[in-house]
Amino acid sequence: MSKKKIVVSLGHEALGHTTLEQQGAVKLTAKALADLVEADYQLTITHSNGPQVSMIHKAMTELRRVYSDYTPAPMCVCSAMSQGYVGYDLQNSLRSELLSRGISKPVSTILTQVTVDPYDDAFYAPTKVIGRYMSKEDAEAEIKKGNYVKEYPGKGFRRVVAAPKPLDIVEIESIRTLANADQIVIACGGGGIPVIEQKHVLKGASAVIEKDAIAGKLASDLKSDALIILTDVECVYKNYGMPDQTPISSMNLDEARKYAEEGQFEAGSMLPKIEAAIAYLEKVPGGKVLITDQKNAIACIKGKTGTVITA
Amino acid sequence: MSKKKIVVSLGHEALGHTTLEQQGAVKLTAKALADLVEADYQLTITHSNGPQVSMIHKAMTELRRVYSDYTPAPMCVCSAMSQGYVGYDLQNSLRSELLSRGISKPVSTILTQVTVDPYDDAFYAPTKVIGRYMSKEDAEAEIKKGNYVKEYPGKGFRRVVAAPKPLDIVEIESIRTLANADQIVIACGGGGIPVIEQKHVLKGASAVIEKDAIAGKLASDLKSDALIILTDVECVYKNYGMPDQTPISSMNLDEARKYAEEGQFEAGSMLPKIEAAIAYLEKVPGGKVLITDQKNAIACIKGKTGTVITA
Repeated sequence: MSKKKIVVSLGHEALGHTTLEQQGAVKLTAKALADLVEADYQLTITHSNGPQVSMIHKAMTELRRVYSDYTPAPMCVCSAMSQGYVGYDLQNSLRSELLSRGISKPVSTILTQVTVDPYDDAFYAPTKVIGRYMSKEDAEAEIKKGNYVKEYPGKGFRRVVAAPKPLDIVEIESIRTLANADQIVIACGGGGIPVIEQKHVLKGASAVIEKDAIAGKLASDLKSDALIILTDVECVYKNYGMPDQTPISSMNLDEARKYAEEGQFEAGSMLPKIEAAIAYLEKVPGGKVLITDQKNAIACIKGKTGTVITA
Repeated sequence: MSKKKIVVSLGHEALGHTTLEQQGAVKLTAKALADLVEADYQLTITHSNGPQVSMIHKAMTELRRVYSDYTPAPMCVCSAMSQGYVGYDLQNSLRSELLSRGISKPVSTILTQVTVDPYDDAFYAPTKVIGRYMSKEDAEAEIKKGNYVKEYPGKGFRRVVAAPKPLDIVEIESIRTLANADQIVIACGGGGIPVIEQKHVLKGASAVIEKDAIAGKLASDLKSDALIILTDVECVYKNYGMPDQTPISSMNLDEARKYAEEGQFEAGSMLPKIEAAIAYLEKVPGGKVLITDQKNAIACIKGKTGTVITA
């Protein structure tokens, strides 16, 4: 043992929006991941699934318009399908990239569920926008089903779901077993399938778990040496988007908390990443969090760019 | 270690045809599987996915009719989605059933690919019928895409794909690691996603791998103590469906081969199960194969019913 363990969180840009885009995008993603494997880290990889689960949900809706004997596919089922879909392309591209570098290492995808609290505040005020624009008619049909929608004047309506905090990763033992065997694991895709525990039964929840939140949870549960969050900026900035925007090359927990309180990090974008970093470092004080973009992953781990957060 | 390992192969009846049917069916399936876990066996479970992959394939086709910016989802992608979909329901129902019996044990689903030979005879004469009936127009569109269809006079057309032999289970190391850790693993769903190895790349193949064939392969690769094939009959019969139909309570390899040569076992039904049994027992001569229906799984393993095949 004793190989260093990293949890890698991949953002939207790692995957693209359609089956074809995804096939292209994962090739680039695989290069960044293979660099880390080549640098002798054990990887557990998690990824977003917004466009993927949205595509599948639409497909299952269209299916029922044409073939009325099919029963509905709730979000949790679409999310399970999306984990299979993304995992397939991602594990294949990574396997190929590794083999082309002479590295033969098992890569697999574990279907993952994550429990959430049915009384999480998020359920009372859903904020996570999913899917494309729909007509007023379709929006009203969604409301009838008990779902929430948000109006975008002049553009139409979009569905919104709750983004509750992750409680437990149901399949954590299986993920840990594979990670401890120095295999590469893809897990908690799309934040994991959100489920609510009712006695012995796990019921799918109409929700989406933030992928950054679950990446932090995964890194703490596995006691990872590092959590790398790959996103669309090379590093975290102070006064992001302002004339005096300044890169933050490193910060500690106190600084991270202070900047967050000051409103330095955008909600739904950089803020959940910083929150995930804080949650992980509180549990694993010896760990470190790296935030950068995909092409700088290896440079970041070597301390050449990006932002590093430590306790 | 040393707990006895079983590979369980589940047939269509274990899952149903729609999302709602599947939720009901897996509850019964979970009882049969939990009986085996309670009898202290480690389980690796594989399952069919015909109706599931067909449903998803149709949904992805309808999606493109409505939203033309989405690119096609080939069979391999639909198969990956179906493994996520079935695994989700199956692992949940098994987990619940076990917890209700006071057993807490990790259950997870491993996305699985299986390599096939591009020169397998099956590709020259596809025989495996998939999906529902389609119109002549749709059939012609399929032919244009390079796919095969079969006409059912008066009923329409159905797509046929090749059913090549499985060569290697790509994720076998991950499956083995979890099985050796005494966890319950769902793998090779729908026979596995069929892929063709081209240098370092795995290309999805337009094919379906017989779930019985892959169950036999999985049982040999894992050196399982037994392979249990659950189907829609309580045991294997001689002269099945004839007035002198006789149950076969046990047979050895020679007898199995002889009966198969005599044409005792129906192609596409009992024959692939017997072929899988033979393939496994040739590799693991100390093993045994049990064939029965779901409700008799535990009775069969106790030797009270079903058919047992040994070397």
